[in-house]
Amino acid sequence: MVKKALVILADGFEEIEAVSCIDILRRAGIAVTLAGLNDIKITGSRKIILLADKKLTELTEEFDVCVLPGGSTGAENLSHSEKVNFIIKQMNKEGGLIAAICASPAIVLAPLGILDNKSAACFPGMQEYFNKSTTYKNSPVVIDGNIITSQGPGTSLLFALTIVEKLCGKEISDKVKKTALIE
Amino acid sequence: MVKKALVILADGFEEIEAVSCIDILRRAGIAVTLAGLNDIKITGSRKIILLADKKLTELTEEFDVCVLPGGSTGAENLSHSEKVNFIIKQMNKEGGLIAAICASPAIVLAPLGILDNKSAACFPGMQEYFNKSTTYKNSPVVIDGNIITSQGPGTSLLFALTIVEKLCGKEISDKVKKTALIE
Repeated sequence: MVKKALVILADGFEEIEAVSCIDILRRAGIAVTLAGLNDIKITGSRKIILLADKKLTELTEEFDVCVLPGGSTGAENLSHSEKVNFIIKQMNKEGGLIAAICASPAIVLAPLGILDNKSAACFPGMQEYFNKSTTYKNSPVVIDGNIITSQGPGTSLLFALTIVEKLCGKEISDKVKKTALIE
Repeated sequence: MVKKALVILADGFEEIEAVSCIDILRRAGIAVTLAGLNDIKITGSRKIILLADKKLTELTEEFDVCVLPGGSTGAENLSHSEKVNFIIKQMNKEGGLIAAICASPAIVLAPLGILDNKSAACFPGMQEYFNKSTTYKNSPVVIDGNIITSQGPGTSLLFALTIVEKLCGKEISDKVKKTALIE
């Protein structure tokens, strides 16, 4: 069975984080859908414009992982969306994999209680948004149950490979790592 | 004076390589123009669609650096363009900075003689396209005079930081490196 990933893009998303994930997951053979929050045309934090595959409102299928890139403005836009919050809560209830990087663990996941009683990473400093029961870890990537969190642009490739390993196994993750020349 | 960078995007470009450069150069305050080879809408090797700022044929300004992302098909498309070859030869004649990664050093620069009597990196294995007077180096990034070359997706951030250091100095490069959490 081909694994399916949803990457939600909102204006202000961090481009390295989003594109590293999409690229690496597709290299691993995962079917990745880019869903634009309000539009197909989405502008990142560094003004790179990406065309999403569809609008978030058009989604009907289910996914094995929901990936939330960072970027402060992008994460705030995600957190203000009822549809995004619904998808995340629903996936979490069903034990689905949720992967968030940079500002998104703090701005999107924490307010929903998704990180309660779990360990998590985020862009260093943003752990002030974590609830008290969340243990902040100053690590590139943290896995706790169905939640994968990471720090920022420089940890994007490791974050992406961790998602691949969780969905497809270490052999495929190692193969992608090698062919993409990731140390 | 704000430094100016030209990133040329052709269908089949490697997304991590292109986006890492654009993002990191913009973080450093460099004015980056994304020029699409034949169109504004460009599709990468992993089917991510980017909107360029303008078409390559619309360019009138001069740049401090010309950046060529990799991706085999993307590099081949670049190498078949008279306009791309003209820009690169002109920049090289004037001593301008030329930065190429992955397939581009081998597929785009080598046939133009740009790497003759120089050391260069590329995606490992593609050095077979180098002319005899070029010294292949199996290093993440190689600087030789006005030419910066690099290996692939996993070396993109270091490649981008090297361009920043060359154009803006080590202080700014180090600052971007730190805020983007690059080890």
